[in-house]
Amino acid sequence: MAAGDEDKKWFREVNPSFWPGQAFSLEIDEVLHQQRSKYQDVLVFKSKTYGNVLVLDNCIQCTERDECAYQEMLGFLPLLAHPNPKKVLIIGGGDGGVLREVVKHPQVEQAVLCEIDQDVIDVSKKYLPNMAQGFSSPKAVINVGDGFEYLKNHSQEFDVIITDSSDPEGPAESLFQESFYSLLKSALKPPHGIICCQGESIWLHLSLIKKIMTFARDIFPTVAYAFASTPTYPSGTIGFLICSLEKDKKLNEPVDEKIADQLDTRFYTADIHRAAFALPAFARKELSNTK
Amino acid sequence: MAAGDEDKKWFREVNPSFWPGQAFSLEIDEVLHQQRSKYQDVLVFKSKTYGNVLVLDNCIQCTERDECAYQEMLGFLPLLAHPNPKKVLIIGGGDGGVLREVVKHPQVEQAVLCEIDQDVIDVSKKYLPNMAQGFSSPKAVINVGDGFEYLKNHSQEFDVIITDSSDPEGPAESLFQESFYSLLKSALKPPHGIICCQGESIWLHLSLIKKIMTFARDIFPTVAYAFASTPTYPSGTIGFLICSLEKDKKLNEPVDEKIADQLDTRFYTADIHRAAFALPAFARKELSNTK
Repeated sequence: MAAGDEDKKWFREVNPSFWPGQAFSLEIDEVLHQQRSKYQDVLVFKSKTYGNVLVLDNCIQCTERDECAYQEMLGFLPLLAHPNPKKVLIIGGGDGGVLREVVKHPQVEQAVLCEIDQDVIDVSKKYLPNMAQGFSSPKAVINVGDGFEYLKNHSQEFDVIITDSSDPEGPAESLFQESFYSLLKSALKPPHGIICCQGESIWLHLSLIKKIMTFARDIFPTVAYAFASTPTYPSGTIGFLICSLEKDKKLNEPVDEKIADQLDTRFYTADIHRAAFALPAFARKELSNTK
Repeated sequence: MAAGDEDKKWFREVNPSFWPGQAFSLEIDEVLHQQRSKYQDVLVFKSKTYGNVLVLDNCIQCTERDECAYQEMLGFLPLLAHPNPKKVLIIGGGDGGVLREVVKHPQVEQAVLCEIDQDVIDVSKKYLPNMAQGFSSPKAVINVGDGFEYLKNHSQEFDVIITDSSDPEGPAESLFQESFYSLLKSALKPPHGIICCQGESIWLHLSLIKKIMTFARDIFPTVAYAFASTPTYPSGTIGFLICSLEKDKKLNEPVDEKIADQLDTRFYTADIHRAAFALPAFARKELSNTK
């Protein structure tokens, strides 16, 4: 077999600026979809051992095999820290995975998804039907557009806002900036409003996380960081940055253990919720609030 | 640059039987050492972004950047679950990393390392000096030989036995079998004896883990599973199988919070100890004791 043939059989995720010197590869069974959308390169392939895989701008967004960890944690860490999360906004998350989880919560009445790229939604509906099932929930409202702009037009409206973004390169860049966190705060409903944002990796991006947490602490009274095991994200883990409008809010404890245990989950449990906030010594040292 | 040159610049970890369809790669700065020892292929390279890397039989054993997680957890999960761990046996662990951690514990008086491959010890002393520093501790006793045979000649002697093995292919195969766990039990000192074994990945090897836990439960009164984030192991996580001679032993709580917090660690903390036992729903379901 020529080298070129071998190359075509594996998807190799490299990113010299965001995770230099390392690469994760998945063996391809079949390329299902490939396009340049208005915003990014969109690729879906059927992998040999991880089910269908969505890739945006050469970064793995989710695989059917392990997506449960990210979707459930990003959704339920904030939902289970809120006493009554009726109205939820998801910024990004066009694959529908987080939406699928959010609408499971019995107290959620409406979940608005604000995704900038219609093509991601369409591709997910076609090739990731198990993730896209959230789109057909009667609780779901889909808005195709810029999350930044959407927030400007909504004040004190949402109990929980979840930012399910790709990395801070390309279309998601603005979602890692201070002005975005200020907008998130203004769109939260007092007094219990909570946000949860994709928070990168403690092993790879500790200084970026520290920077975001530092300005987040100027905006929100309570800021915390949690992380979970996610095999197909760089370094095998992803973090969650959680901020509350409440002072001294205890985020590392589900407010309702009964709801937490009744959710039909593959990854999240009440114990996992508590455990996610225990940071390795090196990360705790950097990220603890030393103001 | 020819394709061959590019290949030489990356170490690519594939294993079609143990983690099919996926691969993790590290960029090579310089190959430092390469040999066939009596037991296995030994490779050390300086990576671009993870420091020096030890590879045995094509599997990454440790990188200087993230080795703290594995070494500290494998060492301190059992040590901090024992009320007075004076005498410790480490089977495998020829890189010296676990030994380095074990001798930090103030109650440990002697730590015996039983490694089958002298070359791994020698290579580590030369290329992984920060890990090999445990070898020079006055508490350390080094025994080059087969762990299985060593256990046969030691009865009720060790407070804690740690198995720091490679995967169940090659020289470590026997360390994943029921007869080995019986020997571990017989070498433990009653009534508080505890073992901790490298326990593979919940994402990749759940049925193997279940199999081991099932026979371990026939041998030990208390059996538990914990896991931690380890970026350069397949799926980004590794587990720890912990068994105690005590019935209903609470393993997920450090017996001495003061000692736990005084250890000079980069990863382990008392909170991390507790958190490590919180398993994702899918793993909890498979691994819970349903006897």
